[in-house]
Amino acid sequence: VIVPRTREPGHKFKPFALGLGLSAPWLHRPPRPAHRRVNFNAREQALVDRIKRLKKEAGSHSPSAWTLAKQIPELRLKVDACFLSNPYATHLFLTHLHREVIRPRKLRALLELYPSQNRVIAAKLGRVLDLEPDSIFVGNGAVEIIQAILHRLTRQKILVNLPTFSPYYEFARPDTQVVFNLLRKEEEFRFDPARYLELVRRERPDTVVLINPNNPDGGYIPYAVMLDLLEELRDVPNVIVDESFIHFACEGLGYAYWSVVDEVRRFPNLMVVKSMSKDFGVAGIRAGYAVMAPDRVRTLLDNGYLWNSSGLAEYFFDLYSRPDFQERYERERIRFIRNSRRFFDALARIDGLRVYPTHANFALAELQNGLSAEDLVWRLLVRRGIYTRTCDDKRGLEPGKFVRIAARNRPENSYIIRSLRRLIG
Amino acid sequence: VIVPRTREPGHKFKPFALGLGLSAPWLHRPPRPAHRRVNFNAREQALVDRIKRLKKEAGSHSPSAWTLAKQIPELRLKVDACFLSNPYATHLFLTHLHREVIRPRKLRALLELYPSQNRVIAAKLGRVLDLEPDSIFVGNGAVEIIQAILHRLTRQKILVNLPTFSPYYEFARPDTQVVFNLLRKEEEFRFDPARYLELVRRERPDTVVLINPNNPDGGYIPYAVMLDLLEELRDVPNVIVDESFIHFACEGLGYAYWSVVDEVRRFPNLMVVKSMSKDFGVAGIRAGYAVMAPDRVRTLLDNGYLWNSSGLAEYFFDLYSRPDFQERYERERIRFIRNSRRFFDALARIDGLRVYPTHANFALAELQNGLSAEDLVWRLLVRRGIYTRTCDDKRGLEPGKFVRIAARNRPENSYIIRSLRRLIG
Repeated sequence: VIVPRTREPGHKFKPFALGLGLSAPWLHRPPRPAHRRVNFNAREQALVDRIKRLKKEAGSHSPSAWTLAKQIPELRLKVDACFLSNPYATHLFLTHLHREVIRPRKLRALLELYPSQNRVIAAKLGRVLDLEPDSIFVGNGAVEIIQAILHRLTRQKILVNLPTFSPYYEFARPDTQVVFNLLRKEEEFRFDPARYLELVRRERPDTVVLINPNNPDGGYIPYAVMLDLLEELRDVPNVIVDESFIHFACEGLGYAYWSVVDEVRRFPNLMVVKSMSKDFGVAGIRAGYAVMAPDRVRTLLDNGYLWNSSGLAEYFFDLYSRPDFQERYERERIRFIRNSRRFFDALARIDGLRVYPTHANFALAELQNGLSAEDLVWRLLVRRGIYTRTCDDKRGLEPGKFVRIAARNRPENSYIIRSLRRLIG
Repeated sequence: VIVPRTREPGHKFKPFALGLGLSAPWLHRPPRPAHRRVNFNAREQALVDRIKRLKKEAGSHSPSAWTLAKQIPELRLKVDACFLSNPYATHLFLTHLHREVIRPRKLRALLELYPSQNRVIAAKLGRVLDLEPDSIFVGNGAVEIIQAILHRLTRQKILVNLPTFSPYYEFARPDTQVVFNLLRKEEEFRFDPARYLELVRRERPDTVVLINPNNPDGGYIPYAVMLDLLEELRDVPNVIVDESFIHFACEGLGYAYWSVVDEVRRFPNLMVVKSMSKDFGVAGIRAGYAVMAPDRVRTLLDNGYLWNSSGLAEYFFDLYSRPDFQERYERERIRFIRNSRRFFDALARIDGLRVYPTHANFALAELQNGLSAEDLVWRLLVRRGIYTRTCDDKRGLEPGKFVRIAARNRPENSYIIRSLRRLIG
């Protein structure tokens, strides 16, 4: 057995807990601070106004690039660095789809016929993951799974880290109290296990959520720390570990990643959520699954989900189950990670931008020269066709200062770096 | 304004109610009656055993043809007359997809990017349907919508007709009582409004479900009767009208169909459910929507559904919103209905088969020469590659006697008729 090395070999559990830090003013979304303004010309300003309207309609998520491109074709969108995915994996999937489905004229069956039911797809996944199908819940994207867990299994109180992927608190039932563990900018948003456990003991939540690596900062909880945490969290009724970005977080040799999926056998309170959108670059087909104790899967299925996978999602899961596809995918995963690391390094060297350490396929960047996050994002979009994400609506981050930028393929990464140098410099 | 003619112009409300008829023995699923047996050879019997296993796994639904074809390739499935759809419409969709997406190399965007969020798609539909977007709930197939309504809006008691589409009682919450209005074989499964309203007054359900035309018998409630019913049901908190098959039910001139979608404005308790799987033949992409009062849509959205449409579903809804597509679709709809009527007529002329009147794209057939429904269905499947649906698991139908057969394109219809003549004769 290889014992995985952690990112921080000398990691010490701190003996004191600083708690929530809920006094941080931006938790309550204060009025935006004054920033250096950008002068847009009339055409640009008109575009920005239209984007802002779309953004407003999308609530606490960004409008998809698809929505933007369709509704504002004048934007000439070139690079979607808002969306978090591996574009090489998308290409791999598309190649298979063309060769195995479209060219042999089998697409019709995928579109016309009812796909297999939830349990049939779970059975297929069970074989390849070497897990009981009863412990697999197949979802129409990870968001559906998150929502199902929060509505059916969470009771009085949920603990989430902040900043976080907002559905974890937005989808909480109205009768569920949400408490936050604030990841601190001064500590580079590092997750502190000791402080966290202290908070768990004090707040006694029935559900805790750990996104690993975390979104939007890319912070990573090493495997060994995660195992210790699971042990310490044994008494918490529901432990959600969201591994949507784990394929980009390597530890040890050979770009290996370390999932806690198998730990579901040891920890009946553990639920591991897997999105396929990011690692396999197929957000458009809506596919995800979660692994958890069979009684939990049964509880969720009581709520429906009979035919929640499309024909294309089923084809994807068929590919996912094939060793030949997995082998090709591994090559694309590693290629993407290598490029991404180069990209994050280049990003960190741009003046006026502070880039936080990331183990995911995106980086959280803080603007340091007075330009506001929104102005940078609109400039990038309107002048360069690059779509990034302002974090102004992310609770736990000071508004106006943070932008999340996703890694893409090599030419796109270079274009992003060139554009940022020009617009920030 | 054309006043639609009803199928039964002299329709009279009967002055007495016969109630549920719950004494009908097959409501309690008795042991199957003895039937004439079919002799399968060893190869055929092995196939039948495998199909039965799949069927068992699928619960009260049939395994999809996709599942069958993938898991038992030896079956050589030729015609899927279990699945209810318009194959001409599928072809129309596929033609557009090839011309507008695949050939111009735009498929990648559909698979890679996040599709638009629920509310963006609702806004598009609102424009074409001339309805407030706030009154549209977009679903990952109609099944998701049914489940959402039953879980969030239904309270103590739901009334459904029997036989019916089983999710309407299967997905009811455990604390919801389900009561049935039995459609009687002796009355050719005709819906009797007076008896129904009497039952509503007696049982005081908070939710009633009307599938129009009904599945699995194809019985139709004429438009004028439906309007009267809605008026009479004003005091029932939730009235669900499922119009998944309304495109096949014509009234009046020129194959016109009559939807009650617009009545949502007049009846705040009305929810109209629309599946796209059947009329547009695209079950594989999972698309449906429902129209209801905005406060109901808001209640459902509280439960999530943020990104529940796939990229392909969004493309479908874009097509659906285009007048040029709708015009072409209308031609295919009418062509299909004409063929279907010929098919049902030919079906009715087969000895040993009693075919009930249908206004949908399928017919309920009763076996009258001692052959059991299962044996006919397996024979058709194993010997002729035709997949039909035994109704043995349909509550409200005497087991062993009923088969549901869907209309397909003309050559397929002829093949089904020839095969039935040979196997039943």
